[in-house]
Amino acid sequence: MRVGQVTKKALKVSKVKARGIRRGGNAARRPARKPRRSHDALLAELKARLAEIRDLAGAAAVLSWDEATYMPPGGASARGRQGALLARLLHERRTQARLGTLIDQLTPYAETLPADHDDAALVRVARRDFAKATRVPARFVEQMSQHGSASYHAWTRARPNDDFAAMRPYLERTLDLSREYAEFFAPYRHVIDPLIDDSDAGMTCATVRALFSELRGELLPLVRAICDRPPTDDSCLHGGFAEAPQLDLGLSIAKAYGYDLARGRLDRTHHPFCTRFSAGDIRITTRIDPDDLTEALFSTLHEAGHALYEQGVAAALDGTPLGSGTSAGVHESQSRLWENVVGRSRTLWQHYHPVLRATFPDRFGEVPLETFYRAINKVERSLIRTDADEVTYNLHIIIRFELELDLLEGRLAVKDLPQAWRARYQSDLGVSPQDDRDGCLQDVHWYDDRVGGMFHSYTIGNVLSAQFYAAALAVRPEIPSEIAAGRFVTLKGWLDENVYRHGRKLQADALVRRATGEPMTIRPYMAYLWRKYGELYDLPQALSRPASHAGQGGA
Amino acid sequence: MRVGQVTKKALKVSKVKARGIRRGGNAARRPARKPRRSHDALLAELKARLAEIRDLAGAAAVLSWDEATYMPPGGASARGRQGALLARLLHERRTQARLGTLIDQLTPYAETLPADHDDAALVRVARRDFAKATRVPARFVEQMSQHGSASYHAWTRARPNDDFAAMRPYLERTLDLSREYAEFFAPYRHVIDPLIDDSDAGMTCATVRALFSELRGELLPLVRAICDRPPTDDSCLHGGFAEAPQLDLGLSIAKAYGYDLARGRLDRTHHPFCTRFSAGDIRITTRIDPDDLTEALFSTLHEAGHALYEQGVAAALDGTPLGSGTSAGVHESQSRLWENVVGRSRTLWQHYHPVLRATFPDRFGEVPLETFYRAINKVERSLIRTDADEVTYNLHIIIRFELELDLLEGRLAVKDLPQAWRARYQSDLGVSPQDDRDGCLQDVHWYDDRVGGMFHSYTIGNVLSAQFYAAALAVRPEIPSEIAAGRFVTLKGWLDENVYRHGRKLQADALVRRATGEPMTIRPYMAYLWRKYGELYDLPQALSRPASHAGQGGA
Repeated sequence: MRVGQVTKKALKVSKVKARGIRRGGNAARRPARKPRRSHDALLAELKARLAEIRDLAGAAAVLSWDEATYMPPGGASARGRQGALLARLLHERRTQARLGTLIDQLTPYAETLPADHDDAALVRVARRDFAKATRVPARFVEQMSQHGSASYHAWTRARPNDDFAAMRPYLERTLDLSREYAEFFAPYRHVIDPLIDDSDAGMTCATVRALFSELRGELLPLVRAICDRPPTDDSCLHGGFAEAPQLDLGLSIAKAYGYDLARGRLDRTHHPFCTRFSAGDIRITTRIDPDDLTEALFSTLHEAGHALYEQGVAAALDGTPLGSGTSAGVHESQSRLWENVVGRSRTLWQHYHPVLRATFPDRFGEVPLETFYRAINKVERSLIRTDADEVTYNLHIIIRFELELDLLEGRLAVKDLPQAWRARYQSDLGVSPQDDRDGCLQDVHWYDDRVGGMFHSYTIGNVLSAQFYAAALAVRPEIPSEIAAGRFVTLKGWLDENVYRHGRKLQADALVRRATGEPMTIRPYMAYLWRKYGELYDLPQALSRPASHAGQGGA
Repeated sequence: MRVGQVTKKALKVSKVKARGIRRGGNAARRPARKPRRSHDALLAELKARLAEIRDLAGAAAVLSWDEATYMPPGGASARGRQGALLARLLHERRTQARLGTLIDQLTPYAETLPADHDDAALVRVARRDFAKATRVPARFVEQMSQHGSASYHAWTRARPNDDFAAMRPYLERTLDLSREYAEFFAPYRHVIDPLIDDSDAGMTCATVRALFSELRGELLPLVRAICDRPPTDDSCLHGGFAEAPQLDLGLSIAKAYGYDLARGRLDRTHHPFCTRFSAGDIRITTRIDPDDLTEALFSTLHEAGHALYEQGVAAALDGTPLGSGTSAGVHESQSRLWENVVGRSRTLWQHYHPVLRATFPDRFGEVPLETFYRAINKVERSLIRTDADEVTYNLHIIIRFELELDLLEGRLAVKDLPQAWRARYQSDLGVSPQDDRDGCLQDVHWYDDRVGGMFHSYTIGNVLSAQFYAAALAVRPEIPSEIAAGRFVTLKGWLDENVYRHGRKLQADALVRRATGEPMTIRPYMAYLWRKYGELYDLPQALSRPASHAGQGGA
């Protein structure tokens, strides 16, 4: 359930804040009587240069995908070099002086266009990308890529052996590199701000902290209330599911959602992800646990949500920096919407329960819909983030975010991380891992990329998933009855229109306001959780949130 | 049974003849008292620049492999652009002025080293590569890559529809580009010479023609004699073989040969190939025909032969231009040796016949070894090159080579190709295709790359496969008895030592002389064919070749 590589990795160096590109340039000195032709020529050159960057990024993504899917072990060291080389070439192109000149020359013209004109957005976003990219030296980009690759391969060996000691030098170096990266964007209010800005432009340590604080205050009583109830029996989900039908089930639902396999495909990886090579080639991966039906099924639906977003970006934006999802948080809202709000709804399984029975007749022939529905929504205090239910999931994220702050601020040494991890889990979730496999070695993040800016987006995504869904329902109340019939076209259509097609034309905050009529808020999310889990766990009304939190929740 | 992409594609722009790099340079002006340090530094820089080229070529190969294995149809147009972009970046690097300067500066030093010193060979080969690459403009390399990709995708649609008309404009353009490419190397004796030189440096139209003429003269009586005998019953090879055990059977033999799956893997493609991403990642592909057991089996063994060569190159040459097979012809000698000389020998199946029976008990439980051995070596006049037996195969090649000459010389128009194809097949093989699917649309070559220099290497490979094998047997007569026990280590060891480890340090002609004690000759090949097929088809001794053609043949 990893956020799409498409969001974290591809956006990492490309997302920007507008900063100090020198103004003026040749445009002002060109003859005034042929302004259109001049702009046309400059725009054409800008687009050609940006298209080359997109193609090179797509090529780099193919290498990463292959590394995670099919590469034999012997290929690792050369692949690290190849990836680092492409990262350097990309960085050279993202920071080429001519790009800055073109953007400068086109800015006065772009400012005369309506703000939502494709070309105005293109120049605006290209300007931000360029300003941000030029802060980071090429040498550093290559170092980080090569170290990330080496660390990832070390982690794939260290995790099964519960060998945190082996990862300690890697993680220490990753932490140093993460801080060094942040320094390129100094001054900042908090060292994590530049890291957050990469994935969720417009957000900062302060805004994330405030959101998480409010959310934790609301989640703790809910978790407590649920965990006071008798535990759900989810035994129907466990034990001996053949692999091929597991893959088929998830993929058939993803296709029904609208994931276009003529422009995508599903493969298996250690850690699921979604990646974009081009508008016509957006792939997802999943992993299978023969003993746990939910693993492949919901990983597939999660990544399919990322892929629906990418496949839904307007064709006109293809080949430009506008042609992908706008932020990691908004991206995650789509994976969580299709995985959870839709994929774990009773409504969806009204249609798919017969399909499930036909797929695994020996296992589900006698299992009623309600038993299955309750099983896939079982809430419990647990150790593994990616296996966590919707309600406790955010507590896993908040722990990680706070550990990132401690590490980055130097209050926590890498060597003390395992102990700090256990302490937090004990205090916030009431459980503590026996070993680091189920503790601080469990996530690929920190080990494949950087410390900081990697986890918060998941919770932003959860919050936004409910906000978008409620907004869609408000104008298209027929959506749940369609879902109950296995049709998703109205929901997908609303999301295409209000989220997907815009690509990066709108920054996350503007997109959320425009689509939902208000800034990001936890109200719809908490309303959704209380409505769904209040009913599932028969919670006392007195515990329920005030009326302001009610409203549309869940399919 | 396509030659490894590793040979044709990767060597295309990199194989060279030494030509006009300006001599002299800074090296001569450096202080004489520190020559080693100076050379060391220059060599280190040269190697770093060449390693980057290798890594970029490896990245480009990943994109091609993915295009042929897993890419969804929607990815095609962007992949064409991405491939063309990497081809252009590669070409820029292969022709960078600094490379020429370094090579110039290092040449006087390299000439003081023993000829077989790695660094002497490195400078020599880098010099040839550079001289050749600088003849071709970057614009042209990108054009050719993009056109090749578009043409390939058109061919995958046109071939099943028997639509030669759809391919005509593509092929006309490919022919123009092939001629234009040759012009960059003018003056030449024949327009195909620069195209042949790319894959088999040192050979020309004249040498290939002479070889083919001699070979045809020897093959025609053999084919006639065999086809006068009653046809072999090969029905045991046809009808309903499950896919997974087909793949397993071929791969288990390839592994026994020595193909290291920690540094490789097998996938399925429309057209089998072998490709090299790095020394640690050399992959093969195959295709399965449920109705024909030989398809996947021998395609896998063929590509495994290419892969054994690449995996056997000395580790010290990794990352340099010396680190891959020396020519397409020598490469093909290894694929044909492992596919045919070993893979279709009675000796090998003495060991593998029980494995075959265990793999397909319903099919081979009652089939004796001898019946199977005769079936996999059935000789017949046929239409499809890749399905052709060892004896008639070269006639398919000779037809294509002569058609290439006619097309390149302008004696044959593309529109008249189907008719010319039928006429040649009728006259040389006594059969004529009903449609172009089984005629001039059957091969991917001409449609994915160029016209000229693509086919001749297969026959050179056949000839050399027997020559190398006979040389190995002369010094290690125990090889057949090892093969009969399912062991290949002595043969593989001889090839590692005499062929593989040298990479591109030795040009094909020097390698052949050194390994076999004489220049390329068809004698061992004809002796092998007469011995094997004389026995199989009970040919009259009177027809057999003179004593000079006898000797070691077949495992």
